Amino acid sequence: MSGSYFIPLLFLLLSVTAEASFCSTKGIPLVRNISELPQSNYGRGGLSHITVAGSLLHGMKEVEVWLQTFAPGSRTPIHRHSCEEVFIVLKGSGVLYLASSSHEKYPGKPHEYSIFSNSTFHIPVNDVHQIWNTNKDEDLQVLVVISRPPVKVFIYEDWIMPHTAAKMKFPYYWDEECFHTPKDEL
Amino acid sequence: MSGSYFIPLLFLLLSVTAEASFCSTKGIPLVRNISELPQSNYGRGGLSHITVAGSLLHGMKEVEVWLQTFAPGSRTPIHRHSCEEVFIVLKGSGVLYLASSSHEKYPGKPHEYSIFSNSTFHIPVNDVHQIWNTNKDEDLQVLVVISRPPVKVFIYEDWIMPHTAAKMKFPYYWDEECFHTPKDEL
Repeated sequence: MSGSYFIPLLFLLLSVTAEASFCSTKGIPLVRNISELPQSNYGRGGLSHITVAGSLLHGMKEVEVWLQTFAPGSRTPIHRHSCEEVFIVLKGSGVLYLASSSHEKYPGKPHEYSIFSNSTFHIPVNDVHQIWNTNKDEDLQVLVVISRPPVKVFIYEDWIMPHTAAKMKFPYYWDEECFHTPKDEL
Repeated sequence: MSGSYFIPLLFLLLSVTAEASFCSTKGIPLVRNISELPQSNYGRGGLSHITVAGSLLHGMKEVEVWLQTFAPGSRTPIHRHSCEEVFIVLKGSGVLYLASSSHEKYPGKPHEYSIFSNSTFHIPVNDVHQIWNTNKDEDLQVLVVISRPPVKVFIYEDWIMPHTAAKMKFPYYWDEECFHTPKDEL
């Protein structure tokens, strides 16, 4: 092997190995310190997301748990998914917008629910919803549980967008990095 | 109606209505204050259990969430269940005992893992395990997520009891009250 190729190839090999290791479920400790888990905004302003127990990262098959923090004014997209979802509000307050499934072609005007520290709520399967930190002074921190991971999300631009026009996002933001990596092969 | 029967019948009617209402998923608020949810030890010393989002109480189909507090020295039974389970330790510390599934006829000597505030871990489906608050000075508080609710538990007296001798407990302690009540009929 020519010396001029060796160093770049070594770096390539190391970075591939590192990625495979991050996305592999082999060898991860059974008990993990949540504060040491990877955290990112995944390109979404005001968000902090940690996959506490995940399908792609930790081999979960039936449930997945996230820890998310929304800075004041930040929010999820208007969206739906074909799974159950439970929220536990750990800190802060805000608003849940939830469209009942009574409209057939589009979500329609959502109901508005106040959410607050130490409250819980769940989103019925496929109901269109949005979480919004409306508190100007405080982060909104939630623990989120979903079934049927990894999540497949349909995103709406507004509440009158037809269901058929909602844009599918799969893998979702935090699943992108590991979704296509062959798992447990290195 | 004879006056002597009226008062007892009224009390019976009221108590049946109250039970049906407690166990009905109709009319429960979407956003619930966790500190106002029913809490009990369900006959187990040192335990405080709250069903945050449950199959029988709240109509969950695929996931269930509990908030549990173990007083110093208290513990779960040695047990297994055919569902995924994720723990998030909110306060305190203790020990997870987890038997790998390598023994065929009985759990065998378990591995011992330290668990601590802000840690997370999950129990593989059907692995026999026990959570123990070994901290003499502090409660151990955990948020627990399970799939496939309501949970069906198999309890062991010790780690060398054959799997076939483990005693099934279904409905589990906190599901007993509402399991046999016809739901949503009043």
